[in-house]
Amino acid sequence: MWIKDSTEVAPQTLQDGIRIRWLITDKDGAPNFAMRVIEIDPGVTFPPHTHPYEHEIYVLEGRGVLTNPEGDVGIMEPGKFVFVEPSAPHGYRNIGEETWRFICIIPLQK
Amino acid sequence: MWIKDSTEVAPQTLQDGIRIRWLITDKDGAPNFAMRVIEIDPGVTFPPHTHPYEHEIYVLEGRGVLTNPEGDVGIMEPGKFVFVEPSAPHGYRNIGEETWRFICIIPLQK
Repeated sequence: MWIKDSTEVAPQTLQDGIRIRWLITDKDGAPNFAMRVIEIDPGVTFPPHTHPYEHEIYVLEGRGVLTNPEGDVGIMEPGKFVFVEPSAPHGYRNIGEETWRFICIIPLQK
Repeated sequence: MWIKDSTEVAPQTLQDGIRIRWLITDKDGAPNFAMRVIEIDPGVTFPPHTHPYEHEIYVLEGRGVLTNPEGDVGIMEPGKFVFVEPSAPHGYRNIGEETWRFICIIPLQK
């Protein structure tokens, strides 16, 4: 059982202006799911994509839009949470003036 | 794929001064894990307890102490995250002046 600060975990760049911090993973002994923080800079878009696993998301800071290939789905801001079903196309666009940060949980591969 | 606000989910009382909001569960079609928010009022203690599944925790607001039967483990405040291994005894004590709120993810029973 341990406590860490999210700034202790180095961010990895996913694309220009988008970073991920892998907070809790199988390397920590997590048996079932991984906790990450996604950080998207102002004005940056993460295009819609799919994968066969779900997301459970909770917004920490900033303001952005959840998107799918048809357009905008809704606003994601602090206190909002999101469920993305397995294989649902989803993307993100920061529409605020600060870095948009949200927790994103995924299942671990077994 | 959907977005909700955490205040839309009614809190359930766990004990006096401690509430839980089940944000995303199997009832939403979540296949692997559930997202909850735990809320602990100032001065309130959640005594150490155990269960056979892990917690992955991220602190949203407030300030408290993670405990085990031997004593205090460390401070949990915004930006901190916690891994509680399956069967590890753990408890919580709010030492701040506001409600302490953290996300707590658990695996779903299969």
